[in-house]
Amino acid sequence: MDQIVYRPIGTIRSPFKTLSGMPIQPRGAQAAAGEIVVDPAYEPGLKDIDGFSHLILIYHFHKSQGFELTVKPFLDDHPRGVFATRAPRRPNAVGLSIVTLLGRSGNVLRVGEIDVADQTPLLDIKPYVPQFDAPQASALGWLEGKAENFREKRSDHRFLK
Amino acid sequence: MDQIVYRPIGTIRSPFKTLSGMPIQPRGAQAAAGEIVVDPAYEPGLKDIDGFSHLILIYHFHKSQGFELTVKPFLDDHPRGVFATRAPRRPNAVGLSIVTLLGRSGNVLRVGEIDVADQTPLLDIKPYVPQFDAPQASALGWLEGKAENFREKRSDHRFLK
Repeated sequence: MDQIVYRPIGTIRSPFKTLSGMPIQPRGAQAAAGEIVVDPAYEPGLKDIDGFSHLILIYHFHKSQGFELTVKPFLDDHPRGVFATRAPRRPNAVGLSIVTLLGRSGNVLRVGEIDVADQTPLLDIKPYVPQFDAPQASALGWLEGKAENFREKRSDHRFLK
Repeated sequence: MDQIVYRPIGTIRSPFKTLSGMPIQPRGAQAAAGEIVVDPAYEPGLKDIDGFSHLILIYHFHKSQGFELTVKPFLDDHPRGVFATRAPRRPNAVGLSIVTLLGRSGNVLRVGEIDVADQTPLLDIKPYVPQFDAPQASALGWLEGKAENFREKRSDHRFLK
């Protein structure tokens, strides 16, 4: 399988029109709400989604170009392997965020705690289920003691080309 | 952006050679270990990954063909909107699992709690960081009271065409 082709199922709308000043993770963006506009053709696939408090969004970092295998992440000043970071410039520029579901109107989901750039192409929505998705982590690598700081951090231009 | 093209960064090796009898989520597969074989060209991107106890794997459900917008999930007998389920047959057949990292040898990661079919093409690896990824969920929709049962559940042929 040499290449895998996906087509967006919709678009993420958010207040973040530029890449700088964005929150770097959803928990750092509690005030920011946005919308998921799903292609009307897929609306029947949203049945039953209203019952979940949180959703997993999988999307394409459409403003990310190219990648390097080691990067200086937002939360650190040492170069780290890209797969040990959440940097958007990665071999496959696929992003993952967990957001709160605030409401639904047809093919549009209103979501909170969003950290995604406006107009981001959406690949998939999955229900967030802590029993599947939230194991107890015992080691956080280079993020140990740093992950707590993310609420105050905002992205800069480090990942713009 | 009409289509998004990814290329596998490696392959997931697991004991699950067939789709039936597989655990349906990683927490249901605590005994199963597997390997992530990353393309040697990407090995520098694994720097610093050893420090994390858990990794997020994003992969392509390569054995999944086609999709329906409502499905009967493993844990239920009512049809549910596909985006309210974790079913592999989805508009973009992208999968997400959180696994434990047991060790690394060069470009090969030994992982535990894996629920992924053998030879699955890997799209991305991200560090799992509970501060980003593990919010408190307050509602589980149709999975309420059912998500606890997943340890005993095994997949069946429901998603084979």
